[in-house]
Amino acid sequence: MLLEYKNLIDLHLKEIMSKNSELSIYQPIKYIVELGGKRFRSSLALLSSDIFCNNPLKAINEAAAIELFHNFTLIHDDIMDEAPMRRGKSSVHKKWDTNIAILSGDLLYAFVNKILASSPEQSSEIHLLFQQTAIEVCEGQSLDMEFETSSQVSQDEYINMIKLKTAVLVGCALKIGAIIGGASKVDADLLYNFGVNLGIAFQIHDDILDVYPDKGVFGKQIGGDIIEKKKTILFIDLLSKSSLSQKNEIFSILESEDIKKDKKVEKIKNLYNKYNVLSNAEDVKSIYYNMAIDNISNLNIETTSKNKLKSFANDLMNRKY
Amino acid sequence: MLLEYKNLIDLHLKEIMSKNSELSIYQPIKYIVELGGKRFRSSLALLSSDIFCNNPLKAINEAAAIELFHNFTLIHDDIMDEAPMRRGKSSVHKKWDTNIAILSGDLLYAFVNKILASSPEQSSEIHLLFQQTAIEVCEGQSLDMEFETSSQVSQDEYINMIKLKTAVLVGCALKIGAIIGGASKVDADLLYNFGVNLGIAFQIHDDILDVYPDKGVFGKQIGGDIIEKKKTILFIDLLSKSSLSQKNEIFSILESEDIKKDKKVEKIKNLYNKYNVLSNAEDVKSIYYNMAIDNISNLNIETTSKNKLKSFANDLMNRKY
Repeated sequence: MLLEYKNLIDLHLKEIMSKNSELSIYQPIKYIVELGGKRFRSSLALLSSDIFCNNPLKAINEAAAIELFHNFTLIHDDIMDEAPMRRGKSSVHKKWDTNIAILSGDLLYAFVNKILASSPEQSSEIHLLFQQTAIEVCEGQSLDMEFETSSQVSQDEYINMIKLKTAVLVGCALKIGAIIGGASKVDADLLYNFGVNLGIAFQIHDDILDVYPDKGVFGKQIGGDIIEKKKTILFIDLLSKSSLSQKNEIFSILESEDIKKDKKVEKIKNLYNKYNVLSNAEDVKSIYYNMAIDNISNLNIETTSKNKLKSFANDLMNRKY
Repeated sequence: MLLEYKNLIDLHLKEIMSKNSELSIYQPIKYIVELGGKRFRSSLALLSSDIFCNNPLKAINEAAAIELFHNFTLIHDDIMDEAPMRRGKSSVHKKWDTNIAILSGDLLYAFVNKILASSPEQSSEIHLLFQQTAIEVCEGQSLDMEFETSSQVSQDEYINMIKLKTAVLVGCALKIGAIIGGASKVDADLLYNFGVNLGIAFQIHDDILDVYPDKGVFGKQIGGDIIEKKKTILFIDLLSKSSLSQKNEIFSILESEDIKKDKKVEKIKNLYNKYNVLSNAEDVKSIYYNMAIDNISNLNIETTSKNKLKSFANDLMNRKY
């Protein structure tokens, strides 16, 4: 349903990229932007502006900044996670090297800031919200990295981490669009909260899909998060419900070099089923999803606009892969 | 002569750092800021504001942002240059690891942007100048990296690289201080040009000192740039004056694993002397230094203020180590 906005974003990004300098350090930037993506964060900024002033394009610069900021974090996250692939192609640090990935990421963030500083819609409120969000995204990534080597992470800590790493940028996109569209402070804040709550629900949904893909989706390899030893909500819940000896067994399965990958996934998934971690994750997801829907209900906007937002939230949570 | 400003900067940075979050990702940021430094870029912002409105502190937020931005580039440059040390202590990526150095650098840049977005002195002109400068600093670093593996770099290309990598941030600091102090557009631009020209002269001075430290300075190991195969103005000039066979000899000296470091420096320095590259470098340095002094002369400010700027420029260029 955001396709019309995605097309506007893609067009604008293409135009921005075509004006880039000839310097070779801009090549990785062009590369990652052209890898595409759902552009759903930036589309939400346009939707939000559209709702309040009937003009999505009023927020086009800020939407591009949000999308490019997201791409900057992908370049650096892929280095940190040693991810060889991004959207089915080589990640920047694999296609070039780590130094070029570091520097092109830095340059991309500077480029984002220049877009914000050049926009006719800029205000100190938007600058501050954007940069506070950038800080939080970095903080979230730092917590995610810390959790990798931590044997004990609580569910609250996990939710705080995904809120920072993923959800605040969704809230930021919606709120910036609302500010530009002329929304009241209350409505702008409600949209921010909608984005954050939906972002959290979305990440939990993503955790679940990795192990429990919906029926009807064939061919997807399950358990990638398990193999990568990611601290998902499922895994954290399993650990919290395990005895010390059980925990040791879990870690020895994951660390084992003798057990094949699909066998590892099977063993962990059996434990997930035994301890009913899916049901807990679904419950937590519903809590945040319902909060997001409540945020929409409280907005002082037309019903058709509310329905658009609800429909988007619903589509996002029914994503099957 | 900038000591009074340096003290103001150090005090302000200390205050900012004391308010940082407890998250461990802030530790490397605190660490690099506390390693100290001359703070000369940020001091120039205060000096410039002082000249135009008699109040250096009016630009304290922007000065801190400039200093912290410089520190962000140091964290990332040290990764890219594989530098184990910074100001006599371990660099961030050595004391922690590369991932933490990447992320704490990103966070520091976001933190810088938040300072700018929170400042009462902010304006789109300042935001734009700062972020355009950030872009250019990244571009300069990318050229520096490219030059490492390039056998042919012209003097013009070299000057453009040091202008971007080093000099524009000096100009940016002075111009932001001038804008905040209420300078005219002409004066603000003259100060920018002063900073850029002085920054270029300063970097050439630095290149020279590495091989030709002033008499009276004992104990400094000379030729660090030669050992690191850096493309300095001296080295570029040597290559431009060398025949193909001479060039091959130069590279075989530098690449040799049999020749000891001090012998390598001696051999290259002999070639520097033979081809008189010092004299060329001194000439180029003087051109930029004199342009910087001319920029000051044209400013519409009191003579005592002009003398302060000239005295600073003179001190910087008489730095012996």
